[in-house]
Amino acid sequence: MQIESHRFLITGGASLIGLRTAESLLAAGAREVVLYDNLSFDAPDGALAALLETGRVRLVRGDVLDAQAVETACEGIHGVYALAGFMSAGIGKQPRLGLEVNVLGVLNVLDACVARRVGKLVLASSSAVYGYGAIGGAITEAEPLRTHAVPAPPALYGASKLLAEKLCQLYRTEHGLDYVALRYSTVYGERQHYRSTNALYIIDAYDRVARGESPVLYGDGSETKDFVYVGDVARANVLAMRAQVPGEAINIAGGKPLSVRYLAETVIRLAGARVEPEYREAPAAGFRIKTDAPFHYDIGKAERLIGWKPEVPIEEGIARLIAWRRDGTPR
Amino acid sequence: MQIESHRFLITGGASLIGLRTAESLLAAGAREVVLYDNLSFDAPDGALAALLETGRVRLVRGDVLDAQAVETACEGIHGVYALAGFMSAGIGKQPRLGLEVNVLGVLNVLDACVARRVGKLVLASSSAVYGYGAIGGAITEAEPLRTHAVPAPPALYGASKLLAEKLCQLYRTEHGLDYVALRYSTVYGERQHYRSTNALYIIDAYDRVARGESPVLYGDGSETKDFVYVGDVARANVLAMRAQVPGEAINIAGGKPLSVRYLAETVIRLAGARVEPEYREAPAAGFRIKTDAPFHYDIGKAERLIGWKPEVPIEEGIARLIAWRRDGTPR
Repeated sequence: MQIESHRFLITGGASLIGLRTAESLLAAGAREVVLYDNLSFDAPDGALAALLETGRVRLVRGDVLDAQAVETACEGIHGVYALAGFMSAGIGKQPRLGLEVNVLGVLNVLDACVARRVGKLVLASSSAVYGYGAIGGAITEAEPLRTHAVPAPPALYGASKLLAEKLCQLYRTEHGLDYVALRYSTVYGERQHYRSTNALYIIDAYDRVARGESPVLYGDGSETKDFVYVGDVARANVLAMRAQVPGEAINIAGGKPLSVRYLAETVIRLAGARVEPEYREAPAAGFRIKTDAPFHYDIGKAERLIGWKPEVPIEEGIARLIAWRRDGTPR
Repeated sequence: MQIESHRFLITGGASLIGLRTAESLLAAGAREVVLYDNLSFDAPDGALAALLETGRVRLVRGDVLDAQAVETACEGIHGVYALAGFMSAGIGKQPRLGLEVNVLGVLNVLDACVARRVGKLVLASSSAVYGYGAIGGAITEAEPLRTHAVPAPPALYGASKLLAEKLCQLYRTEHGLDYVALRYSTVYGERQHYRSTNALYIIDAYDRVARGESPVLYGDGSETKDFVYVGDVARANVLAMRAQVPGEAINIAGGKPLSVRYLAETVIRLAGARVEPEYREAPAAGFRIKTDAPFHYDIGKAERLIGWKPEVPIEEGIARLIAWRRDGTPR
């Protein structure tokens, strides 16, 4: 679907990824972007205000669980991004609301797309659909969901994202709705929040360093993560809307393993601090997302199908996050 | 948890598995069994009437989506069986209701168990949590969920059952609720319904034979399934309630691969008919549950942890199903 002169709606539009996607859509020539958001997670800030000032962005305050409101908001929309969702920790704390939003919320968006003849849906899925624990190496889109011996919250999150993808698949079969599912790895960048358990390795690490404390690592720090910068994710969202890839699920990730020790040391170095990471046995409360071996999400399919690969190196992304955190400007 | 002199509630209690489990609980000395069912799938029949006549079984007509009614029904109950649920085909047709029942319905049962201090929950999970497609060999409880290239309905079903298990895991962590998840393979037996896509290889085959038609097979008939007789499942339900196995997920299956050709030929032979299976390329409508290689669900854990293994051979089970279908008696 072309972006130019088209109108798009983003559920969870006021979020880290939502605002950045709106910017990218405007830059690509979109006529209008509707940010559909209940503002329960993201308070209005300078970045949102700057978007609204363009005159091409509208904020519709609404909940994805309000099926009628979602449908009304989709009137005249050409393409929808379904970004609204709970992450692992939130589902652990509010399982009913979290699963309603992640599953029934997507169902409401799908019904609205069918009812209002929206041309295409981009679903925000997650690399959590591969689970954790016994994963390692290059993880392609054909990998199964591993939740054996995984704490309930990330397993519930991964299963809820898999359900959302399969609902899209069902609606493509039953109603001919065009969609593509993007499986983001851990997204980080300016406007970083505390809801992503894995992104804490950056934002919590930096905030501790800024307070003169040490970043906290569990285990020996050799465990790895796969991070992707929010600006790269926004670009993937635009490319996925443009591309003809109906029904595909595509990894959007950094594509390389980063040890949590390296992340902590990079945060310390870029912050100009003189502390060392602190190693602990296990978190005092909550759960840990653990994996057994170095891994990364294979991003070959993204390059082949939508012409995307990440452009912002982790050091650059962390530097931008720190600059944003320090001066508090929209970006 | 002991069975003797205790009271049990079964959601979806009027079902194939529910009634048989109630019988087994009574035989094991249960004081009372409450069948909680909205009767949307299973109409009252002779088997239900026979149970009610014992005076130790009560039918409570209610919906698992009515949280208050579930909680009220759990008053004074020692152990709950969460059997109510939609299967693959039903979810494909009614995804919203199906997922609400399979996920939020279980959440309502969990909340009721916590609120009414129910001692233990046995969750009816499914071997669908391993998915389909690229499975083969002996499938243990550590296997992941494979839904790549699987039709949406069975993938949604499998993911919904995995979510239900993980909700139980969350409630065990957060509220200390004792539970065990039994992953049934395809259950068949007297009072067989048409909602189980895989069980159609028996009930649809027999009904066709009874009409003088041929059972229908897709492909060359070499594809395999793993069936377990409903009486064996009911016995597993009783053993799982008795055993001290908190938080475990356990396969309850026949434990051996049966080709669909063998199933059709067995139905024909036991029905005394003189037809041959008819081979077709693909179903005219709906979806197929396909697997790539012969497989069976490993039942070693069930024997080790709850002392269960199947006792009724497939020929005996099919003979009982045919006898029930022919004379229409409760069993």
